[in-house]
Amino acid sequence: MITQQFIKKLVVKNGNKIILLVMDGIGGLPNEFGKTEIEAAYTPNLDDIVKDSITGIADPVSLGITPGSGPGHLAIFGYDPIEWEIGRGVLAALGIGFPIKKSDVAARGNFATFDENGRVIDRRAGRIPTELCKKLTEKIRKNINEIDGIKIFVEPVMDYRFVVIFRGEGLSGEVSDTDPQITGVLPLKATALKKEAEKTAGIVNKFIERVIETIKDEHPANGILLRGFSEYPDIPKMSEVYGLNPAAIATYPMYKGLAKLVGMNILEVNGMEIENEVETLKKNYDKFDFFYFHVKKTDSYGEDGNFDAKVHLIEEVDRKVIPELLSLKPSVLAITGDHSTPSVMKQHSFHGVPFVLYSKNARPDRAEYFSEREIGTKGGLGRFEAKNEIVLMLSHAMKLKKFGA
Amino acid sequence: MITQQFIKKLVVKNGNKIILLVMDGIGGLPNEFGKTEIEAAYTPNLDDIVKDSITGIADPVSLGITPGSGPGHLAIFGYDPIEWEIGRGVLAALGIGFPIKKSDVAARGNFATFDENGRVIDRRAGRIPTELCKKLTEKIRKNINEIDGIKIFVEPVMDYRFVVIFRGEGLSGEVSDTDPQITGVLPLKATALKKEAEKTAGIVNKFIERVIETIKDEHPANGILLRGFSEYPDIPKMSEVYGLNPAAIATYPMYKGLAKLVGMNILEVNGMEIENEVETLKKNYDKFDFFYFHVKKTDSYGEDGNFDAKVHLIEEVDRKVIPELLSLKPSVLAITGDHSTPSVMKQHSFHGVPFVLYSKNARPDRAEYFSEREIGTKGGLGRFEAKNEIVLMLSHAMKLKKFGA
Repeated sequence: MITQQFIKKLVVKNGNKIILLVMDGIGGLPNEFGKTEIEAAYTPNLDDIVKDSITGIADPVSLGITPGSGPGHLAIFGYDPIEWEIGRGVLAALGIGFPIKKSDVAARGNFATFDENGRVIDRRAGRIPTELCKKLTEKIRKNINEIDGIKIFVEPVMDYRFVVIFRGEGLSGEVSDTDPQITGVLPLKATALKKEAEKTAGIVNKFIERVIETIKDEHPANGILLRGFSEYPDIPKMSEVYGLNPAAIATYPMYKGLAKLVGMNILEVNGMEIENEVETLKKNYDKFDFFYFHVKKTDSYGEDGNFDAKVHLIEEVDRKVIPELLSLKPSVLAITGDHSTPSVMKQHSFHGVPFVLYSKNARPDRAEYFSEREIGTKGGLGRFEAKNEIVLMLSHAMKLKKFGA
Repeated sequence: MITQQFIKKLVVKNGNKIILLVMDGIGGLPNEFGKTEIEAAYTPNLDDIVKDSITGIADPVSLGITPGSGPGHLAIFGYDPIEWEIGRGVLAALGIGFPIKKSDVAARGNFATFDENGRVIDRRAGRIPTELCKKLTEKIRKNINEIDGIKIFVEPVMDYRFVVIFRGEGLSGEVSDTDPQITGVLPLKATALKKEAEKTAGIVNKFIERVIETIKDEHPANGILLRGFSEYPDIPKMSEVYGLNPAAIATYPMYKGLAKLVGMNILEVNGMEIENEVETLKKNYDKFDFFYFHVKKTDSYGEDGNFDAKVHLIEEVDRKVIPELLSLKPSVLAITGDHSTPSVMKQHSFHGVPFVLYSKNARPDRAEYFSEREIGTKGGLGRFEAKNEIVLMLSHAMKLKKFGA
């Protein structure tokens, strides 16, 4: 089996550049006219690229598995998403741009409503607005910032949701949820799932006690529920494993956070538009040899069920981004997504994701235009797991030497 | 996952014959007219075979990995090339046809030029001619053939390159290179990479000392550098695992050596031409049930960047070899390569390799002619790892029974 250790021994450094364009949630399903979002979009530039590329359909995790943003991105960055599972607490911290560090433990929190006996009446405290969430987290922060030498950070997310980060020596993410998932019962005690987590579980329970002491007279949010305890993983950096000097161009905190996790340099983007991202790429093109270029809204429109908006965004990328990327003449231009988000499903899905690798070293296949079905039936890579994509990018950029003599 | 142990339990012996035609480095890339070497060649016989075969594109090691001849061949012989890594020293010994044995340790050597302080001035001794290399190895052999009970064989290869083989009890290939890879510094001492290699490292260092004593007055080759220490592996034989009585028809030492490694009988070929190989096959056809038939020069012409010569050789195989193989009516005729060597790249590459399995038991796919793209987009096997090929050959020859009831 191919491992990162195996690849590492083959890595050769050279100045050749790789651009990885990730259109989040790009894969789709046919609408009532029988076309997916990609197929409905007018994409002359992408179609031209496909003609000269090797293409295939990638499964981010494995056939039939729907990935979250974490696993979807880790796979295309060259990390086995099953081996490197990023906990929900950590992802939530990354999602708000919190500067989480190695060995921090993070958990997702809900503000909730408890009755006079401490039983859960409403797991979401009537979905309180973000403003109230901010006020409550501020109040908690004023009262609690340290327990038994462990620093604690409480950060609002959205509506009734917040994140809590524990920082200090000897913490572990192997702690059970306190959210009972039903109402009418007491919240659960945090318990250690492994012996090394006993200290953490103790601190979590003390923390909850003190939070409830702090907000017990609030209404409707007089309690909290925590879940998804997880440690920020000590994941090998892309520079160590793949010999790359990588940079990330993304506008949303979650993706910057995921890129930082694997050791990418996070480049500043002045604005939220794809044009701003292109500017950043051009300004920094000389400084790095691997660029992760993230387009967020293909996924957002898919989740909204907005087929047409997703189509238009794909067309915009074709018109505004692709020619700019080509003008830089990278050794490898890879175009893909982290998963599918079909507008007709309004959610991430288990469908394969088109992958297009454009390089003068590619052996072109028979796919003639950008389409899930065209690539899926005429693509030379067939159907494969996304964690292999980094190997393909490296080899086409001549960054891997021969294995064995 | 399929393992050799799993397959072994399913093996059934019968008289059915398998011919495996390996055109070394057969896969290519399009030339300026948009055709690969295979596509440019006129191959009516191969095209006919493809129509009635099941075909696919194989990755010798894994997607994006460029294999050397060792891993490329081991995979098609049914050995996981990552599990069974053959060291460079051993491959060099196989390459000159040295009768290397189980538990021998071999290393590649360079004659080099050292200054009066023993520093490396030229790692290749001005690329001395093979004749001088032969004279020097002879001189060393006269002076040194044993150290501390370990027999030592020093054999010329080409130009400044030689091989040294250590034979005796308790040796290990886990010894570091002495080649510093740069000039102006002292050569490195051989060190044990694992405890069990301490004895070997000691003998290597004594050997180097005595060699330098022997050639110190030579010019320009007054020193040596060793690298790629490796043990001849104790690999299971094809007869044990696959129940085959296999024979190899090859003209170059490296391939005979690789075939011997997996327990094939090496058949004598009277000459270096493909016609000579066909003769050998016909003469021995009754005696074995698996024939590895190797064509070397497809790779050589690829490495030379000689597109047309590679095309002509493919046409020659089509005209002179294929009809002869068909006339023997094997139960399975498999046609493939150990890797791609595109003439435009002049080196082994990471591109997939066409695999064609012709058998009355095959379910033909839609591929109509011999071409990487035709097979890659219409082949029924899709894209797969080459280590699975032996299982396909065995099953189509009815040599594997049902798994489970």
